[in-house]
Amino acid sequence: MSLYPPSLSPLLSLLKKFPGVGTKTAERFAFTLLEWEPKDLEQLSLLLTSLPRLLPPCPECGCITDKGECLFCHNPKRDPSKLCIVGSAKDVFALESTHSFQGLYHVVEHLLSPLDGRHADQIRLERIEKKIATHQIQEIILGFDATLEGDTTALYLQNHLSSFPLVLSRMAFGIPVGSSLDYIDGGTLTRALQGRRSLT
Amino acid sequence: MSLYPPSLSPLLSLLKKFPGVGTKTAERFAFTLLEWEPKDLEQLSLLLTSLPRLLPPCPECGCITDKGECLFCHNPKRDPSKLCIVGSAKDVFALESTHSFQGLYHVVEHLLSPLDGRHADQIRLERIEKKIATHQIQEIILGFDATLEGDTTALYLQNHLSSFPLVLSRMAFGIPVGSSLDYIDGGTLTRALQGRRSLT
Repeated sequence: MSLYPPSLSPLLSLLKKFPGVGTKTAERFAFTLLEWEPKDLEQLSLLLTSLPRLLPPCPECGCITDKGECLFCHNPKRDPSKLCIVGSAKDVFALESTHSFQGLYHVVEHLLSPLDGRHADQIRLERIEKKIATHQIQEIILGFDATLEGDTTALYLQNHLSSFPLVLSRMAFGIPVGSSLDYIDGGTLTRALQGRRSLT
Repeated sequence: MSLYPPSLSPLLSLLKKFPGVGTKTAERFAFTLLEWEPKDLEQLSLLLTSLPRLLPPCPECGCITDKGECLFCHNPKRDPSKLCIVGSAKDVFALESTHSFQGLYHVVEHLLSPLDGRHADQIRLERIEKKIATHQIQEIILGFDATLEGDTTALYLQNHLSSFPLVLSRMAFGIPVGSSLDYIDGGTLTRALQGRRSLT
């Protein structure tokens, strides 16, 4: 039984929904919140309720919008012949920070994970198909996590998209830049060997 | 310059106020919040604004109260002749979970840290003095962190409380249970040697 006052439990349950936050961290967060200035609490409270209105997903690509405008979909500087499909809006910004991709993005509803109730029929393929037709997409890059969920989703989309006349690829697996072979797991080393690139 | 929509920055700034949360984690939290159900967002929002009302600090001991009742101050099962002074309300629950202390608690306003603007004149000593008089306290245990701030606060209170006719002690420093000497820093080993206990 928890020693904390019962009024604290709903807050602890919600804080535990943050990624990587377990009981201990949620407790630490809750007690930090108890020490916050009321004005900060009110500001965060206000931001939380206004979040869905402030930053709704773009109806076309599924990434977030700011003031109703998608940052990528209607940007004339982007190359509309290339499309990168990712698993979450956050991944879009991770890829953007590299400045290595100037095409369009598409965020799938979720990565496939049937055990967690995330099934293939919830992926709206017609949104991707419409995008291929509208922009005459020449190349699609699958930018999914190197996890079971990412692999499953990539396989599902590969099956579906292979009939389209376009180049379909998945981001490379291999040794992360700056790391030593010594510290890398066998799975990654195998993929790095399989994906080796000719230097001649 | 951040690539994120400007509307996201106030939320990121607030999330970074949580202990141990830097830019990366705040971003991860913010994108998680964007995926939360509106009802969860509203519940958290409501909890945040009602927090100061729901769990205000006890005016006597400074720990949190539930429905206006301090869990410790007016509990007849507690031994009022012993007082443990700690640095934050969270520490009270950490000590309570051990079931090794049945006395009263007192949470100081903050641990002393002049560089962070936390000075000695903000510690309300009269609250401790009043408690000593009211309950005829026989023993005070200083339960502060083993940090510079904890040491400073302990020294300050030691200077102030040494004139009172009571036993004043500080929690022991030493080897954490379950750890090997091999992994312990020199400072801790020195304190463990100094605090050695006779077995005969």
